[in-house]
Amino acid sequence: MIAATPPMGWNSWDCYGAAVDEKTVRQNAGFMAKHLKPHGWEYVVVDIQWYQPTAKNHRYESFAALTMDAYGRLLPAENRFPSAAGGKGFRPLADYVHGLGLKFGIHIMRGLPRAAAHNRLPVLGTDVGCEQAANPHSICAWNPDMYGVRAGTPEGKAYYGSIFALYAAWGVDYVKVDDIAREYPHCMKELELISEACRACGREMVLSLSPGPAPLEYAEHLKQYGNLWRITDDFWDNWVLLKAMFERAAVWCVHAGPGHWPDADMLPLGAIRQCDSADNRTRFTKEEQITMMTLWCVMRSPLMMGGDLPKCDDFTMRLLTNDAALALLRESHCAHPLYTTDESAAWTALRKDGTGEYLALFNLSDEARTLTQSVAELECGPVRSVTELWTGERSKAVPDIRAAVPTHGARLYFLRT
Amino acid sequence: MIAATPPMGWNSWDCYGAAVDEKTVRQNAGFMAKHLKPHGWEYVVVDIQWYQPTAKNHRYESFAALTMDAYGRLLPAENRFPSAAGGKGFRPLADYVHGLGLKFGIHIMRGLPRAAAHNRLPVLGTDVGCEQAANPHSICAWNPDMYGVRAGTPEGKAYYGSIFALYAAWGVDYVKVDDIAREYPHCMKELELISEACRACGREMVLSLSPGPAPLEYAEHLKQYGNLWRITDDFWDNWVLLKAMFERAAVWCVHAGPGHWPDADMLPLGAIRQCDSADNRTRFTKEEQITMMTLWCVMRSPLMMGGDLPKCDDFTMRLLTNDAALALLRESHCAHPLYTTDESAAWTALRKDGTGEYLALFNLSDEARTLTQSVAELECGPVRSVTELWTGERSKAVPDIRAAVPTHGARLYFLRT
Amino acid sequence: MIAATPPMGWNSWDCYGAAVDEKTVRQNAGFMAKHLKPHGWEYVVVDIQWYQPTAKNHRYESFAALTMDAYGRLLPAENRFPSAAGGKGFRPLADYVHGLGLKFGIHIMRGLPRAAAHNRLPVLGTDVGCEQAANPHSICAWNPDMYGVRAGTPEGKAYYGSIFALYAAWGVDYVKVDDIAREYPHCMKELELISEACRACGREMVLSLSPGPAPLEYAEHLKQYGNLWRITDDFWDNWVLLKAMFERAAVWCVHAGPGHWPDADMLPLGAIRQCDSADNRTRFTKEEQITMMTLWCVMRSPLMMGGDLPKCDDFTMRLLTNDAALALLRESHCAHPLYTTDESAAWTALRKDGTGEYLALFNLSDEARTLTQSVAELECGPVRSVTELWTGERSKAVPDIRAAVPTHGARLYFLRT
Amino acid sequence: MIAATPPMGWNSWDCYGAAVDEKTVRQNAGFMAKHLKPHGWEYVVVDIQWYQPTAKNHRYESFAALTMDAYGRLLPAENRFPSAAGGKGFRPLADYVHGLGLKFGIHIMRGLPRAAAHNRLPVLGTDVGCEQAANPHSICAWNPDMYGVRAGTPEGKAYYGSIFALYAAWGVDYVKVDDIAREYPHCMKELELISEACRACGREMVLSLSPGPAPLEYAEHLKQYGNLWRITDDFWDNWVLLKAMFERAAVWCVHAGPGHWPDADMLPLGAIRQCDSADNRTRFTKEEQITMMTLWCVMRSPLMMGGDLPKCDDFTMRLLTNDAALALLRESHCAHPLYTTDESAAWTALRKDGTGEYLALFNLSDEARTLTQSVAELECGPVRSVTELWTGERSKAVPDIRAAVPTHGARLYFLRT
Repeated sequence: MIAATPPMGWNSWDCYGAAVDEKTVRQNAGFMAKHLKPHGWEYVVVDIQWYQPTAKNHRYESFAALTMDAYGRLLPAENRFPSAAGGKGFRPLADYVHGLGLKFGIHIMRGLPRAAAHNRLPVLGTDVGCEQAANPHSICAWNPDMYGVRAGTPEGKAYYGSIFALYAAWGVDYVKVDDIAREYPHCMKELELISEACRACGREMVLSLSPGPAPLEYAEHLKQYGNLWRITDDFWDNWVLLKAMFERAAVWCVHAGPGHWPDADMLPLGAIRQCDSADNRTRFTKEEQITMMTLWCVMRSPLMMGGDLPKCDDFTMRLLTNDAALALLRESHCAHPLYTTDESAAWTALRKDGTGEYLALFNLSDEARTLTQSVAELECGPVRSVTELWTGERSKAVPDIRAAVPTHGARLYFLRT
Repeated sequence: MIAATPPMGWNSWDCYGAAVDEKTVRQNAGFMAKHLKPHGWEYVVVDIQWYQPTAKNHRYESFAALTMDAYGRLLPAENRFPSAAGGKGFRPLADYVHGLGLKFGIHIMRGLPRAAAHNRLPVLGTDVGCEQAANPHSICAWNPDMYGVRAGTPEGKAYYGSIFALYAAWGVDYVKVDDIAREYPHCMKELELISEACRACGREMVLSLSPGPAPLEYAEHLKQYGNLWRITDDFWDNWVLLKAMFERAAVWCVHAGPGHWPDADMLPLGAIRQCDSADNRTRFTKEEQITMMTLWCVMRSPLMMGGDLPKCDDFTMRLLTNDAALALLRESHCAHPLYTTDESAAWTALRKDGTGEYLALFNLSDEARTLTQSVAELECGPVRSVTELWTGERSKAVPDIRAAVPTHGARLYFLRT
Repeated sequence: MIAATPPMGWNSWDCYGAAVDEKTVRQNAGFMAKHLKPHGWEYVVVDIQWYQPTAKNHRYESFAALTMDAYGRLLPAENRFPSAAGGKGFRPLADYVHGLGLKFGIHIMRGLPRAAAHNRLPVLGTDVGCEQAANPHSICAWNPDMYGVRAGTPEGKAYYGSIFALYAAWGVDYVKVDDIAREYPHCMKELELISEACRACGREMVLSLSPGPAPLEYAEHLKQYGNLWRITDDFWDNWVLLKAMFERAAVWCVHAGPGHWPDADMLPLGAIRQCDSADNRTRFTKEEQITMMTLWCVMRSPLMMGGDLPKCDDFTMRLLTNDAALALLRESHCAHPLYTTDESAAWTALRKDGTGEYLALFNLSDEARTLTQSVAELECGPVRSVTELWTGERSKAVPDIRAAVPTHGARLYFLRT
Repeated sequence: MIAATPPMGWNSWDCYGAAVDEKTVRQNAGFMAKHLKPHGWEYVVVDIQWYQPTAKNHRYESFAALTMDAYGRLLPAENRFPSAAGGKGFRPLADYVHGLGLKFGIHIMRGLPRAAAHNRLPVLGTDVGCEQAANPHSICAWNPDMYGVRAGTPEGKAYYGSIFALYAAWGVDYVKVDDIAREYPHCMKELELISEACRACGREMVLSLSPGPAPLEYAEHLKQYGNLWRITDDFWDNWVLLKAMFERAAVWCVHAGPGHWPDADMLPLGAIRQCDSADNRTRFTKEEQITMMTLWCVMRSPLMMGGDLPKCDDFTMRLLTNDAALALLRESHCAHPLYTTDESAAWTALRKDGTGEYLALFNLSDEARTLTQSVAELECGPVRSVTELWTGERSKAVPDIRAAVPTHGARLYFLRT
């Protein structure tokens, strides 16, 4: 099964925007293999506009000359990805990542390049042009590169087949499709086309859908055609966004399971915004970082580190390597909130092996608070011991779990039963 | 803890509407004590308009002369509840029910009688009249008897205190408050007043809130001030309503827990509509009845039987006495849907003692279907045996649970791990 | 034809609220007869709650004991209207007003008194009670006295027939019905019932509908069943409200005509709020008062003076007695805006006799402005002279009308052609 | 003043769609000069896609190769407009039309050609390319040719300046801008840019805005920046559309005046749809055609004949040459509805010279009706004679105008006073 548990990895967007390059990818992959792989991290994902030679930061340049082959399939810009020279595409970079024991992912936009349509490039393996496959009215609201593909046409199917064949040949393990998850219902058929092309391409690939928020009323369609989908718009290091995630997580949690994961977006930790500004450390406090990691782990969101890995500081590394917390992604299930108010929240999840229950307490208010949770309400039976997973502190069982939690902070407990 | 598990009982509405009388209540209580109490049923609830002398069926008569005391507190109509004569109220009937080892409940409307306000009856223990406590603009949309009470006034608090003092003196164990659960946000303060009066009255009472649908965005307020609340409008024996319950259950399930239960409404089984028509058996097919009982049990909805108990047929009795299915109310937790489509649905819940997982499969389509559920997706580890709880059929563990399910039918399994 | 031109008169609400009394009405009628009648003013209207003995200001008292006859028909409170003693109702006061050569009007609420329903008073001339005619769910949102009447029932028709018979017997010339004009569509049938009772009662009465805003999409229904209807919520001496009237007037102007007049509400001029506070002069600047009078005249709104007439100062009197301006109500037609922006507006109307065109220029901005209007755009042909009607200044014709207008002020011209 | 009265002319869309050619335009112009010019018709307008070499009917071809100059300015397709050869554009055709004593108009789409942006053609007179002037996210919903222009940029202003300079050089008198009138508010700034370029180009041109419905709340902006604007989506020969026009006309009528005219769209009369089908006569009944002409004349809509002029039959010619009816466009003002119901409507307008009033009666029901209009309600004073303008029948004045009107028919009267 693809994505039997939530994927863990690194994505280039938060730190390098549209300007990621090969050297950076290799450095992050190398760091991951050495320091994070033992803790479960495995995907290295090149985000948006790897085909745009002049991208410099998080912005998009209109009418840029995108690198593509004779069939309108985007290729890595060789000035940014030298190993792609000679038509080798991402194959050499994927080989390198695989050689480290890791997996390789790329980002794509829904659709085909506008220039491919206007220049009437042929669709590979057909006798029609990209102008036949393109829908001139299907336009991404925030990126100027592509036209949507006409779903339900043979040429549309052929185009998506042609790009996934290319990705399979490159050795891609993970595809993040953008401009699609919040575009329901008008993109449903195009999503089905993409998903079918992905599954038919001959190589197992995780299919990740962006941006959010995906609409809750299409949960079953998302579960059927994607492996993960964003439940929010782009997430950044801002407390308002983090606090808002609790409500989204509460309504999406029942839809998490093997092969289909609601995605709370990347972790803006450590060294982010490397391409934009000097002020490039996460603005989250340490307590907020613990809150984020606790929520993402207990809800079993995919974990995609957004900061530049080689620049991680010790605190960040401890968050990324806490095996007891990361274990929730693989060892827990049935996560759900006990309550969510403006001031605090609590979540619980069960250990799959029946040995106990996880409890997360969150202080969402702007002052320190003591949070209390009755064990009786958890309905898990007698508790033998209680361990806080970020500190490792272990204590005896008590009828109520009480924790003094700093503002915006969290505690994550395992209750052994 | 009040309502540590979902209440189970009988309610007079489905079979007797506004016209329930003492004889009927005693008969149902007697039947329950003898046949259902061993299976966990315990509440006997007198529904709406026990204070209206001329009620005859499910309809409301405008400007009827309601029975009340000198303080505007409604009393049982003595022609319908003879034991109430002499000012004894529901005390004799409650004593009878308690004598059977059961618990006694009543229905009330939010507010105070309009006539009490227009006649300026005094509020007990105060020097003001009911016209001071009443809000002349707060009007139930479907019943003409009451005005809402002005929340935040001493006289409003005094009025609600006076009626709960009366109910405590009668020995009431369960109060179903109507015209309140879907009236958010304008009734929030009045609900708080009612809830505080209930908790301060000196007797433990379950507080049940109607009608639905209660708004999901007020879930935490409902959990704080009520013990159960309706998640739908009145539920009757109609497949469209039953099918619609799956979506509501899916969004509410994370809010179920000790002391606070989303309520899918009464069970219109057996002999209902006794006061209205000759066609008074449930119109649900047997398969639909199994589907309803399965969903209510797996989601841990309160179970309130709506049919006249002494007239139960054998099939109904088997539904109401299947201990393995009813056990989910007390022994399971963490229920949630695996998926919900227009054609089928699946739910899972865990046994609290860690010995296994429950699985419910529903055929929501209009034809027979074979439904399949991969055990791997349940993430419960190896399964040792599988038992279908309505039939008792036991089978060996297999990687996929496959079931041929009739149209509108369900299967409820326990998977021992 | 009833209301062949827009009615002009005085209404007690702005100055006396719910507490108007006979002495005040007589004083205002006397003043009108002496000073305003020659300028076209003729209606004297007693506003809301003349049947409430304890009303003191603009507020409503819940559950007050309203004066009514044995048939649930409201009567003047005798402590406030002494001449009504002995069951004579408003007949003596109407006689007095008629004796002055004026016309007499009253305000009523849609519906029948709640107390009449709860006390089951009989409907005159029928064998049913008011509780049969009342709709217990039809409740005014802002006044606690009445229940709506069940439209489409014989008893509902009988009740409205009974009150209009009473008003005819009293000599009422004008009825302002409240809680109806913005209540479309649910009050349509009740409005038809009222209108039919009014037209069948044997006496000509103007039918005025409140409060606003009446919904534009029901314009034709309003024209068919009423003589005037409010196009705004209550209008007071506040620039924001006055400025907002321009947009409403613009969409309603095409619906003005003999027998049916969009109503911009009463004129809060001079001595208003006599019952509430010491600060009881209009807060409108003189320029704003001119703007209001200009708009009301050019759009041909009914003119109902709200201030206490005997306390009128000279400036107010000049506004109320400017025959050239008031003449627009009778002598102009085809009024419509030339433009309406956030900063200024212009309106035009034609003299019915074909001798010229009216032009109103409004400075809606917060600073003095020079406003210009091309005569060519008016399409009225050559202009021979131009007269400003508030000042009487006459000038020669020019291709452009240019006026220096103070902030919030207006100019009203007659262009003779 | 441009468009001092509503423009009258012919437009190629209804009969030739996107496939109009030079020969057709010359034939229609010739016919107009000979037969219609004496009745006030003067504009000859070439509608959409004169720059598309392969257009064949009313449909648009995606990614077609549009004819344009080196600066991204669209030019007539020479295969369809031979006189444009050699870079002469529409100058020869405009000269021909002018030679007939008529005026020449063209249609344009908001924006610049997508291909001009993707091919980075320079903007005339600047050192930037069309890709700088284009907004890649501003996309017409129904036509694939253009990108919107970035309002507020020097290059956007330069581009629009460059095309209006070209149109001035060609001798264009009328520009119909499409994809703009219903696109408020996001196209407001682009409309201002277009309007300013039009007024600055050195030649007087009528500016017509399409498609509708333009939003009423932007009426003043439309009046300021356009000369006419569509108040409906495309109008065709369908009774439902014609009937719906009455409500739109009713709310827009107050905004009609010299230089600014609400536009009810072209007249689908006679030989329409010549490019699409054999069934190419208007489907309107004769009565419906009279209704349409009556409404358009009384509301003073621009009149643009949609049918192929040389193929006009006698009935159509009589509609187009009835000077008494057409005179309303120039000789009436102050038009407005008296009423509009589902079954009938009446409109009135005044003769500018003060000699009388126009009255239009419409039977909107599906059966013959006798319609009556009281003259007193018109407030025009005594009437001396009454003439029906379509038939020329004259009658004496009476207090009520009564007319037996066929289903979907109309009568148009002049009442001399």
